[in-house]
Amino acid sequence: MGNPIVSTSLVTASTISRAQQIHTFLQQHDLRAWIAWRPDELLMLSGYFPYWGASLLICFADAEPMLFVPLLEPRDHIPAGLRVREYPWGDLKCGDPYSVLVSAVGNELVKAKVKSEQVGINASASRISLPIQAAEQIPIPEGFSGQLSALTAKLHPRCQAGFANLYLRKTPEEIVAIRQANRVANVGLQAFLENLRPGITEADVAAEVESAIHRQIGRDGIFHSRGWAMVQSGPNSADAGRFNRSSGRRLRDGDLVLIELATCVNGYWSDLTRTAAVGSLKPEVEQILAIATDAQQAAVDGIRPGVSAGHIDALARDKIAAQGLSSFFTHHTGHHVGFRYHDPGFLMLPGESAKLESGMVITLEPGVYVPERGCGARIEDNILVTESGHEVLSRIEGSEQQ
Amino acid sequence: MGNPIVSTSLVTASTISRAQQIHTFLQQHDLRAWIAWRPDELLMLSGYFPYWGASLLICFADAEPMLFVPLLEPRDHIPAGLRVREYPWGDLKCGDPYSVLVSAVGNELVKAKVKSEQVGINASASRISLPIQAAEQIPIPEGFSGQLSALTAKLHPRCQAGFANLYLRKTPEEIVAIRQANRVANVGLQAFLENLRPGITEADVAAEVESAIHRQIGRDGIFHSRGWAMVQSGPNSADAGRFNRSSGRRLRDGDLVLIELATCVNGYWSDLTRTAAVGSLKPEVEQILAIATDAQQAAVDGIRPGVSAGHIDALARDKIAAQGLSSFFTHHTGHHVGFRYHDPGFLMLPGESAKLESGMVITLEPGVYVPERGCGARIEDNILVTESGHEVLSRIEGSEQQ
Repeated sequence: MGNPIVSTSLVTASTISRAQQIHTFLQQHDLRAWIAWRPDELLMLSGYFPYWGASLLICFADAEPMLFVPLLEPRDHIPAGLRVREYPWGDLKCGDPYSVLVSAVGNELVKAKVKSEQVGINASASRISLPIQAAEQIPIPEGFSGQLSALTAKLHPRCQAGFANLYLRKTPEEIVAIRQANRVANVGLQAFLENLRPGITEADVAAEVESAIHRQIGRDGIFHSRGWAMVQSGPNSADAGRFNRSSGRRLRDGDLVLIELATCVNGYWSDLTRTAAVGSLKPEVEQILAIATDAQQAAVDGIRPGVSAGHIDALARDKIAAQGLSSFFTHHTGHHVGFRYHDPGFLMLPGESAKLESGMVITLEPGVYVPERGCGARIEDNILVTESGHEVLSRIEGSEQQ
Repeated sequence: MGNPIVSTSLVTASTISRAQQIHTFLQQHDLRAWIAWRPDELLMLSGYFPYWGASLLICFADAEPMLFVPLLEPRDHIPAGLRVREYPWGDLKCGDPYSVLVSAVGNELVKAKVKSEQVGINASASRISLPIQAAEQIPIPEGFSGQLSALTAKLHPRCQAGFANLYLRKTPEEIVAIRQANRVANVGLQAFLENLRPGITEADVAAEVESAIHRQIGRDGIFHSRGWAMVQSGPNSADAGRFNRSSGRRLRDGDLVLIELATCVNGYWSDLTRTAAVGSLKPEVEQILAIATDAQQAAVDGIRPGVSAGHIDALARDKIAAQGLSSFFTHHTGHHVGFRYHDPGFLMLPGESAKLESGMVITLEPGVYVPERGCGARIEDNILVTESGHEVLSRIEGSEQQ
C-alpha cells in the first residue's frame, strides 16, 4: 500500500488535542457539558465509532467523558478514558430503553451538579450519519431528541456554529486515521485500474473495488472497512455530475470510466474520484479528461493556510471556463471530509470567503460532463492543509494511479 | 438461480392493488392526500425507489400521484403513472431548495382544492431508510418536517397506525420484487458456502458474498443490488445474538460460521441468516446448530393466516427451552420485511396477539448463542403468508444451502 509522499506533515497539523478543543468550546459558551448521539459526533468528540448508532456521549467540562452504550453493543473498540455505562437497548423485557437512557443521563448530570442551562446538544435528527451497522438507519424513535432537549439549554446559533466548527481542524491522531482511510481507498482504486477492460460491467468493477476494501479488515488495526464504489463508463460518465451509480453496461474500448468512491475505515472517511481510459480515447474525449485533471491540479496547487475557499474554487473553475466549458461544471469544487463522507463546514464555492487553516482536510473535485461528447471526467483527492502548504493524502507513492 | 419451490402463491396473496389500499386508507380517515418523503414510504406508496432520498410524493384520493424529484435525480426508473415535478435540489444557485419544494407542494394542494386538514403525513425524521445512494444519510435539513407539517393535519394516532398497517400486506407485484431480492440473496449465500474453508478470513467471505450480489446489477431488470454480509466464525458466532460484523479472524476446522445477510434489490429487501460448518463439528457444537435449525423449522411449519405472532414465537422458543437453553435465545423470533431490512409492524414475540394474514412477509430467525461452547447458530428465512399456509421465499430449488 506504500507510504504517503510526505510523512512529516503530522507535526504541522493542529496540535491542540480534541479534549482541549472541547474544553475551550464549552468554556467559551458557558457550558459544563455537551450531549452527543450521532455517530460522527461521537467519533469526533471521543474517537468512538458506534456499532448500532444508539450510543450517547456526555462530554463534561470538568470530568472524564461518559459513554452510554446499548446492552447489545460490542465492547472491544471503545477508546480508553471513557467511563462506560450500559442501557437496556436490545433487552426483550424492556419496553422503552430510550426513556431509561434519558433518565440515566439526567441522573448523571444531577450527580455532576450540572444544570440544564449548562448543557449543550445538537438535537436535530437530520443528517444522522451511518454507524458500523450500515444497512439501516439508526432506530432513533420519534420524540427522542425532544426528550434530550428537556435536559439541555436552548442554544444560541453562535454556539451551534461553534460546535460545527469543531469538525473543521483535525488533530494529529485523526489525520492518521483519515490517512489510513485514504490508504485503504487506494487499495480499492488499484482494483479499479486492474479491472478496466472491455466487456466487464460497471457493477463488476465496482464489486471488485468494494471487495478489495472490505478485505482490509483485520490488517493494521482495521476493524471496519467498507467502500461504496460507483462506476460510470462511456456515455454514463456524462451523468456523473448529477449522480453516481454502477449499471450493467459493459466497458468498451475508447470509454472514459469514472469511479466515485466513498470509503469508511474505523469510522473515518475518504471521498475520492478517478477517471481512466479503456483503450485509446478520441481526441475530444481525451481533452475533457485533460481539462478536469488540469483544473483539479490547479486547485490542489493553491491549497495553503489563509487562502479563501472561493479562491480555491476559482482556481479550478477558471481553468474550465478558459476552455469555454464552464456550463459543464455544475457543482462545488470541494468540501470538508473525515468524520463523514461529507463533513459539515464551508464548501469550496464561488465567492466563499471562509479561509483554509492548517489541520483542515478537504476534497477537491472539479468535473466536466459533456453529454454531447458522451463523456464526463472528474478527479477528486483528499488534501490536508499543513502549516506550510498541503499534503495530498490520497495519492500514494508506488500506486499506479494517474 | 433456480425457481422458487412453490410458484403458485402469487394468486393466493393479497390481490388488492396498492392504489386501492391507499384510496381506502385515505377514505377511512377523511383524508384527500398523503405526503411521503422517506425512501421506503415512497417505494411502498408508488413503487419508486429514490436515488438521493430527497424525493417527495403526494398521493391524492382523486388524482394521479405526484412525485417531486431533485434536479440531480436519475429519471430512468420512475414508474409510469406518476406525474413528475422537478425542484432545484443540487442547483448551485439555489440557496434553499427545500423551501422551494415546500412551496411547490403547497401550491399543488391548493390547485387540487385539498385543505391542510385533509392532508396526512408521517412527519417524524426517525427511522429514515437508505436510498440508492447508501453511503450517507439523506441530507434532510432541520425544520423540514416542521415545514411540511404546516401543510398537513394533526393526525389521530389511529390514522398513523392505519398508515403503518399499509406496510404489512404486500401486493402480488411487491411479492415478485421481494422474491427477486431473495433470489439475489441466495446468489450471495452460494458464494458464502463456496468460500468456507480454513484460513480465509470472515471479512474475505463477506466480501465474496457482497461482490456476488453486486454483480447482479444489469440482469433481469436489476438496477440496484447491494448486500451487507456479516460473517462470524468459531467463538465470534456466540456474539451473533448481540451484533453481527465480520472480523479478520481466519476460519478453522470445526468452526460454526454464521452469516447475517441484508440484501436490497431495486429497493426491496431480503433479510437472511445461515449457519454452516467448516469441517466436522464437535458434538456439543453440532447440537446447537441442530436445535436452532429445528426451532426455526417448527416456527416455519406453523405459518398460516389467522395464527398469532406470539404463537409462532412460542413454536420456536419452546423447542429451545425444551433443551434447557432458553436463556441463550435472547431476541425476537421474527419481523416483517420487504420495504426495509426491518419493516414496521408487529414482532414475533412472546405474548404478541397480532395475527398473520395472507400477503404478509415475515422473517423467522430463532438463534442459540452459547459462549461456554464457543458457538452460536441462527437460521433465518423470509416467509410469505399465503391463503392456505406459507411459502418460504428464501429457499431456492437447486441451491446448495442447508
